[in-house]
Amino acid sequence: MERYYTLTCSVLLVLSFTIVSGVSFGRSAPISEDSEICIDCHIYLHPGIVEDWKQSSHAGMTPVQGLTKSDLGRMISADQVPEAFAEYAVGCAECHSINPEQHTDSFEHNGYQIHTVVTPSDCSLCHPVEVKQYEGNLMSQAFGNLQKNPVYRSLVDSINGIQTSKDINITSNPPDSDTDADSCLFCHGTEVMVEGMKTIDTDYGEMIFPELSDWPNQGVGRINPDGTKGSCSACHTRHRFDLEMARKPNTCSTCHKGPDVPAYGVYNVSKHGNIYSSKGWEWDFKAVPWTVGRDFTAPTCATCHASLLINEDGDVISQRTHQMNDRLYLRILGLIYAHAHPKSPDTTVIKNRSGLPLPTELTGEPAEDYLIDDNEQEKRKGVMQKVCMSCHGTGWVEGHFDRFENTVNATNEMTLTATKILISAWDQGLAEGLSGGGNIFDEAIEKKWVEQWLFYANSTRFASAMAGADYGVFANGRWYMSKNIQDMIDWMKTHMDMDK
Amino acid sequence: MERYYTLTCSVLLVLSFTIVSGVSFGRSAPISEDSEICIDCHIYLHPGIVEDWKQSSHAGMTPVQGLTKSDLGRMISADQVPEAFAEYAVGCAECHSINPEQHTDSFEHNGYQIHTVVTPSDCSLCHPVEVKQYEGNLMSQAFGNLQKNPVYRSLVDSINGIQTSKDINITSNPPDSDTDADSCLFCHGTEVMVEGMKTIDTDYGEMIFPELSDWPNQGVGRINPDGTKGSCSACHTRHRFDLEMARKPNTCSTCHKGPDVPAYGVYNVSKHGNIYSSKGWEWDFKAVPWTVGRDFTAPTCATCHASLLINEDGDVISQRTHQMNDRLYLRILGLIYAHAHPKSPDTTVIKNRSGLPLPTELTGEPAEDYLIDDNEQEKRKGVMQKVCMSCHGTGWVEGHFDRFENTVNATNEMTLTATKILISAWDQGLAEGLSGGGNIFDEAIEKKWVEQWLFYANSTRFASAMAGADYGVFANGRWYMSKNIQDMIDWMKTHMDMDK
Amino acid sequence: MERYYTLTCSVLLVLSFTIVSGVSFGRSAPISEDSEICIDCHIYLHPGIVEDWKQSSHAGMTPVQGLTKSDLGRMISADQVPEAFAEYAVGCAECHSINPEQHTDSFEHNGYQIHTVVTPSDCSLCHPVEVKQYEGNLMSQAFGNLQKNPVYRSLVDSINGIQTSKDINITSNPPDSDTDADSCLFCHGTEVMVEGMKTIDTDYGEMIFPELSDWPNQGVGRINPDGTKGSCSACHTRHRFDLEMARKPNTCSTCHKGPDVPAYGVYNVSKHGNIYSSKGWEWDFKAVPWTVGRDFTAPTCATCHASLLINEDGDVISQRTHQMNDRLYLRILGLIYAHAHPKSPDTTVIKNRSGLPLPTELTGEPAEDYLIDDNEQEKRKGVMQKVCMSCHGTGWVEGHFDRFENTVNATNEMTLTATKILISAWDQGLAEGLSGGGNIFDEAIEKKWVEQWLFYANSTRFASAMAGADYGVFANGRWYMSKNIQDMIDWMKTHMDMDK
Repeated sequence: MERYYTLTCSVLLVLSFTIVSGVSFGRSAPISEDSEICIDCHIYLHPGIVEDWKQSSHAGMTPVQGLTKSDLGRMISADQVPEAFAEYAVGCAECHSINPEQHTDSFEHNGYQIHTVVTPSDCSLCHPVEVKQYEGNLMSQAFGNLQKNPVYRSLVDSINGIQTSKDINITSNPPDSDTDADSCLFCHGTEVMVEGMKTIDTDYGEMIFPELSDWPNQGVGRINPDGTKGSCSACHTRHRFDLEMARKPNTCSTCHKGPDVPAYGVYNVSKHGNIYSSKGWEWDFKAVPWTVGRDFTAPTCATCHASLLINEDGDVISQRTHQMNDRLYLRILGLIYAHAHPKSPDTTVIKNRSGLPLPTELTGEPAEDYLIDDNEQEKRKGVMQKVCMSCHGTGWVEGHFDRFENTVNATNEMTLTATKILISAWDQGLAEGLSGGGNIFDEAIEKKWVEQWLFYANSTRFASAMAGADYGVFANGRWYMSKNIQDMIDWMKTHMDMDK
Repeated sequence: MERYYTLTCSVLLVLSFTIVSGVSFGRSAPISEDSEICIDCHIYLHPGIVEDWKQSSHAGMTPVQGLTKSDLGRMISADQVPEAFAEYAVGCAECHSINPEQHTDSFEHNGYQIHTVVTPSDCSLCHPVEVKQYEGNLMSQAFGNLQKNPVYRSLVDSINGIQTSKDINITSNPPDSDTDADSCLFCHGTEVMVEGMKTIDTDYGEMIFPELSDWPNQGVGRINPDGTKGSCSACHTRHRFDLEMARKPNTCSTCHKGPDVPAYGVYNVSKHGNIYSSKGWEWDFKAVPWTVGRDFTAPTCATCHASLLINEDGDVISQRTHQMNDRLYLRILGLIYAHAHPKSPDTTVIKNRSGLPLPTELTGEPAEDYLIDDNEQEKRKGVMQKVCMSCHGTGWVEGHFDRFENTVNATNEMTLTATKILISAWDQGLAEGLSGGGNIFDEAIEKKWVEQWLFYANSTRFASAMAGADYGVFANGRWYMSKNIQDMIDWMKTHMDMDK
Repeated sequence: MERYYTLTCSVLLVLSFTIVSGVSFGRSAPISEDSEICIDCHIYLHPGIVEDWKQSSHAGMTPVQGLTKSDLGRMISADQVPEAFAEYAVGCAECHSINPEQHTDSFEHNGYQIHTVVTPSDCSLCHPVEVKQYEGNLMSQAFGNLQKNPVYRSLVDSINGIQTSKDINITSNPPDSDTDADSCLFCHGTEVMVEGMKTIDTDYGEMIFPELSDWPNQGVGRINPDGTKGSCSACHTRHRFDLEMARKPNTCSTCHKGPDVPAYGVYNVSKHGNIYSSKGWEWDFKAVPWTVGRDFTAPTCATCHASLLINEDGDVISQRTHQMNDRLYLRILGLIYAHAHPKSPDTTVIKNRSGLPLPTELTGEPAEDYLIDDNEQEKRKGVMQKVCMSCHGTGWVEGHFDRFENTVNATNEMTLTATKILISAWDQGLAEGLSGGGNIFDEAIEKKWVEQWLFYANSTRFASAMAGADYGVFANGRWYMSKNIQDMIDWMKTHMDMDK
């Protein structure tokens, strides 16, 4: 009985011991005078973020200390850091007042030039390799790839536009920018621009701040006031920028969870996810590099798609990457058909033979000129499989990938069948298709077709890629792919009958 | 290699150290003679709940010890506690035999007057302020608000009634009480009354117990045998009544997870939820008061909606409340349109201009007399925003709320469009509407309409309020709002054609 | 501030202390020479699984050490273990080279006879009782029960077959084996056979390995190359085989999460799941036997369905079982109607009065000869209720089960209503039913009917059984059951009209 009364105390005990003894481990860094001044006020205004930062590596280590780490253990990829930054913690002033001349959002604040929006360009002072890699990542172009592709933009319009009715006559209006920012651009990123200045009555009197458009936003392809693209804090959550968090799958779930991209759900019910959920509390999520087996015994999203991995002997299993598609040879989500990965992260350059900015024809044939070739596919597949081989034999890995590729083909075929039904509906005038110049995503039968690929085929492929079983069957998988075709056929029959 | 063999042992080591040393932390309280007698038998009959209680604050501390705590650190809100209770742990006998004269479920049990159902009135001996606040909470009226509102009750009937068929002629029967208790009333609360006495053959011989209607139940608006409303154990799970558990989001998920109120799902994929999932293991969920930044670095449900929060200097950021809507200015779920919060927790008093017990017209205009006014809305919004400001600047917070309000309006407009289509269906006799006296929720086209607001508009608003991205797009969000309107239009065309 | 800098260090401190002191706890076992040789290479090839194994009980204890444990604490159910195995850790060679003569997948590998697929027969050397129990478990027959039942197999065909179209004429093709393995058989198990030998170029030169059909797979009813059925690693995840993991609910979620069997989702939002999520970090998931109250305070899946439970006095509350249905009296999932549990785990033996291999008629009457009788149902219900009684009183438990049985009946009635509509559609020639010899799962109206029982009735029953509230209402529960009937009726009216 005693045991229970004291269990809580044990935690306190461990903590108190820590407080006393911790200092000797020497994790601390002097805070610059400028940052001290920031903290003096902001600790009262926004205690949450200040305390969060205090627990960060940025607060606990100077760039010079970071530079002393051995090659694989280094988190700083710059060869050197300017003297003004080198010997201080990476604090408020360091990030929020760097490169003022590039920042249209820079403003005078108590004698300092400050900007609200910290950008990849700012981070690249210490992390240039990661920022460069990220520019090769599709995600860095997520804003333009959606907004500047007329086909995708018409999909957005069909979803976000307010529909008004007079009796049963529906008018669809273009979406307002707040709606876009609250939906698609939440993940894709908004365009953050300075729209003017604004006086705010603060606890320290009236102050003037820039007014930012479509703010707040942390989308992966955010257009920043300094002209750069992306938001590092999409994954490296401010203000702790914690490696543990970037490595845990919940971070990815912000954007990769819905029926259009059910990666997180699939992971959760996969063996990998089960192991993480059951045993992850034992793992070391802070170790750099990350040693397979010793630091963790099953992969998270980061393990397979981003992290630097080594074995116990220190041999590199995979290099760290912020391009992600270094290890991805097929693009299985978001488009009508799965296809080889695009060559350029800017997918607005793609034109298929029909002249549409799509990586395949509506009937599935790839726009090969814009996609990586077989050699590059094999190379990327090999890099990914090397991660798999850390825990699985060759037969297992090959069996898995063969099955996955069969599923990719099967889902493409089931999408083609749905597409043919839709084309028949267009041909018979039951819906207004491409030739009529209409939005191809806005009518009842078109929306059934969209769900065929955007939800059901995607889900089935993710389930196959990551072993998430039911996401390939009853949880938005094959059950729905086959049902949807029957529903589309049933719709056709009813409407052809009406037409008589 | 050694390391792994011994990892488990380290946990044992810490535990064993605790067992030995824990007593000195002095967390213990004498158990009353009456409760000792309860435990003597029940430790064998129901070891789970007895052990659970032993780990509780109720077991570890007497009311008098609780009263010695400083103002912000006190969990007892009574100024004093009757002498008979003051110096003992809050045990079995203390809660299950208090106020016997009020309890119709009080029965003689081995020489004691015992009642099964502990109620807010019983808890109020030590926690009167919380019980009083809770009476102002919509949840405390959740039973009557559903059961005594003829419109909502007809929605329940359309869902829970068994439909039988002869060929394709469907008869809908009224639901039985077990079905209601197993579905809507699971969360809303059942009416627990004594229906008689019953002899049960126990390990200690035959004993007589009251037979309770619709038991078990822990719904938030439960009607108790002493006439009170609510069940504190809905959130403060018996028999540990653990603050940690009430503060963790899983507790709220019991009732706030489905498509009608996807708060938990939205939270999970939000940045706040991600931080909790990734870093919450480091936080202190037991500290009272709860210090932003030091005890936790991202909010859970309780943080924003209930908890007493302070900063490191001890300044109060928000007061503890059990009314919840102290910080809620808009009611975004459960009703056809989002609207200002109702003034009274008893919403059966509301009548709109059409005479229906609804906070808006079917076409969206608010029943203003029954809803809080602009001033009160601004006040509540301000209280909530003060919590946000703990981690976010003014521009961020204002941008967020502006976007949220735009989304509330957009979802109301999309609901209005669906409503107009339904009214047209009623007018054309394609379904039986209000004027025909029919249930407005029980036909195919009506059910599509219900999903427009109860699932899709709600989900979109929650996603906006709590930054859950895809719940506002493909996960029951705008994709479905726009698709549903096209489906309703498609249905109209088909059925108008049939009518010819 | 100091505190935060040092929090991480505390973890290191605890770990370092452990490393030094851990050995004295004596958890270690000598590795056999054969296994040492395996490890010498495989630590470089697959460090993840080797390290995982090192953390296992198999690595930390010899069978002889296991045999010394007291009765309730023993994990080995054999009375003795052959001398060759007795004094070594249960390592690579022990499991992967046992019983070579039974293994058609046994192959020569560096002088050893090795097999890839470890089977229940291999595990039974030490765990014969568990393997025997598992043979009585429906899961062990999951492959044949699906593949050899022509009715279920036609359901699989309707889901997995690629549908191709010429205009709107759809042809459904039989599914390929990769698709089956990637979907239904992922959980049900594949048939793993040796298809030939294959040379692979490894880091250690060319080597020859068997080529296995439908590999990898860990399904519960896998047909193994030695002729046995099942895969222990479905739940006891290789290569750690951790009790903690088998006891945590995530493991079960691999197969029990989708809309057809939403056990995990229901658990998650139930009070039991909430307590686990909020307080489970404090529990002891390694203790054998498992003491209610002391080791844990709310059940996981394993607690109710499999584990050996005792109270603090050491009295057995429930015996360990790997048959699972020892405690299940009703079968509430997967079939058209809920019914008494089948007598035989091989359900292909069942024939209903219509001659179909189904446990009930299409109209719900049970095939009684093949199902357990009332006495056996009462017995199993009693065993389960004894677990409930660990934390709940008699009135609570009886109320819960009464309500559950009412829900089972109500969902069966709602399924019957849907079935009658479907039969009417068949009778009127609006779809091709049984009498026409057609697949009864492949047309639009038939798929609506399937969802009535496979998704909505199932979900409602699980919500009732495990107190998951909204899964019985808006999350695939009664809302959808009632809506689906209206949709089916609406479909009938439209199609009867077309027929005119």
